[in-house]
Amino acid sequence: MHPLPIFIISDSSGETAITTLQTAVSQFPDLSVQVTRFPFTATKNKLTNILQQANEVHAVIFHTLVQRALSTELINFCQKHQLVQYDGLNPAIDAIKQRIHQEPLQTPGVNHSLNDTYFDRIAAIEFAVTYDDGKLPAGFKQADLVLVGVSRTSKTPLSLFLANQNFKVANLPLVPNTKIPDELWQVDPKKIVGLTNSPKILEQIRAQRMIAYGMDPASNYSNQEKIHQELDFANQIFTKLNCLVINVANKSIEETATLITSKLGLEPAPFD
Amino acid sequence: MHPLPIFIISDSSGETAITTLQTAVSQFPDLSVQVTRFPFTATKNKLTNILQQANEVHAVIFHTLVQRALSTELINFCQKHQLVQYDGLNPAIDAIKQRIHQEPLQTPGVNHSLNDTYFDRIAAIEFAVTYDDGKLPAGFKQADLVLVGVSRTSKTPLSLFLANQNFKVANLPLVPNTKIPDELWQVDPKKIVGLTNSPKILEQIRAQRMIAYGMDPASNYSNQEKIHQELDFANQIFTKLNCLVINVANKSIEETATLITSKLGLEPAPFD
Repeated sequence: MHPLPIFIISDSSGETAITTLQTAVSQFPDLSVQVTRFPFTATKNKLTNILQQANEVHAVIFHTLVQRALSTELINFCQKHQLVQYDGLNPAIDAIKQRIHQEPLQTPGVNHSLNDTYFDRIAAIEFAVTYDDGKLPAGFKQADLVLVGVSRTSKTPLSLFLANQNFKVANLPLVPNTKIPDELWQVDPKKIVGLTNSPKILEQIRAQRMIAYGMDPASNYSNQEKIHQELDFANQIFTKLNCLVINVANKSIEETATLITSKLGLEPAPFD
Repeated sequence: MHPLPIFIISDSSGETAITTLQTAVSQFPDLSVQVTRFPFTATKNKLTNILQQANEVHAVIFHTLVQRALSTELINFCQKHQLVQYDGLNPAIDAIKQRIHQEPLQTPGVNHSLNDTYFDRIAAIEFAVTYDDGKLPAGFKQADLVLVGVSRTSKTPLSLFLANQNFKVANLPLVPNTKIPDELWQVDPKKIVGLTNSPKILEQIRAQRMIAYGMDPASNYSNQEKIHQELDFANQIFTKLNCLVINVANKSIEETATLITSKLGLEPAPFD
C-alpha cells in the first residue's frame, strides 16, 4: 500500500499540528504516512500553491493557521475538492474565546515569542546539559530536581524532557563503591527522584550495548548478579535519601516525566 | 482578574493537549491561566471524580481520551453542566479514519510505545549531550547535522530540539584563533549549518551575562569590535565550508529548527 500523503500547513512552525498528528496516527497501527510540512504559510498566495499540490496527491491536511481568512480559505478549498482537513488550533482558540468573551490576536508565532518563559526554558536546557551525568555536583543546589539512578534508567533524556518544561534538572549516576558527592545530601529530598529498573530489562539493554560495542555480551557489565548488586546499592541510597523512587521499566520518558511532576506536585508547563 | 482554571484530561501523558493549549492561550495576551493536568485518566470512576472538580471551579477542559466511551461521557457531562470543553484528539483521528476507512485502536499511550523510533530518539538525545560544545569532534562523522557558530547562537538548545525529531546533532563553537578540528572538513557540507547572530543582539546578551557573573559589562567579551571579529571569523569559516547559514537573531529555537529542516529537505518528525 502507498503511504498516505499528509500535509502540515501552519503559519508558524507546525509543531502543534505535528504533535497531534503523531498521536492520531499512532491509533492506526497499519497506517504508513508520508508527511510534508509547510511552515510559515502566512499569505494567501503561498497557501493557494500548497493547496493545489495537496489536491494533486489527494493529501489529508492538518492545519494550524491563526489568521481566520487563511483557515477559511483552506476549509473552503477542501470542501470544494473533497479533501479531508483537520483544524488543529482554531477550535481550541474558540473554546477559550467562548469562555472568556475575548477576541484572539490572530498573530502567527506568538507561542514562540522571545519572552522570559522562553529564555528560562533555554537556560533549563543548558543547565541539563551542563549538569548531566554527575559532572558538576556543585549544581545540585541550584537544581529544581536531581535524578539519581543506575546506568540505563533514562536519566539524560528525562532531564532534557523536563528541561523543556522549564525545570532545571541535574542527574547523577549511581555506581557501587563510588562515593556519593556530599552535595547530594544537602538537597531537599522532595527535589530528588531515584530511578530504578527491572534487573531483566537492564540485562537485555546491557547485553545489546556490549554487542554494539563489539564485546562479549556475557561480560560483567551485563552480569545478572552484578546488576542486582547495583540495584541493591541504589535502593539503599534511595532509602537514606528518603526520596521518591520510580521504576522506569516499560515506561516511556513522557510517562516517567509525567509521574514525577504529578507525584511531586510540580506544575508541568509554563503559560504566559 | 482570577486566572482561568483549565483542566487537561488525558488517558496518556497529556502532552498533545498541553501543546495545543499553549498555542491557543498565546493568542490571548491578557489571559492568565491556572492549568491542572490529570494524566493517565483511563477509567470512568477517575474521570467522574475529575469532572466534578472541574464543575466546582467552572474549568475549561482540554481532553485527549482515545477511548470513545470516556470522551463521550466527558462531552455529555460538559453539555449538562454548561462547561466549555475541547477534544484535542478524536476529531484528528476521525479525519484520518474518514480518509482511510479504518477503525482506530482506542488504546491509550500508543504514541509513547517503546518501538525503534522511540529508542532512536533517546539515542539522538544522548548523542546531542555527548557531542555538545565540540567536546568530541570524532562524533561529527556519525552526526546527521553539525551546527557551528559563535557563542550565544543557541547551539545547545537547537541540538536538543532537533534530537527530539530523531536527528543526531553535534555542535561546535567557533572561537577566533582557535584551530577548527580536522573532522569538520570531512563532513558533507549539506550536513553543516552555520549559525550567526546580529552584533547588536550579541552585545546585549553578553553584557547581561557579564552582569550575571558580577563582572563589568564593558569587558572584552561584550566589546562590539571583538564581536565583529568573531562574526567575521565565523563567516569566513562558513564560506570555506560552503554550508547553509542562518541568522538566529529574533528567531525562536522552533523557528530556526524548522528553517534548518525545511531548507535541508529533512523530514522533521518520525511516524511509525
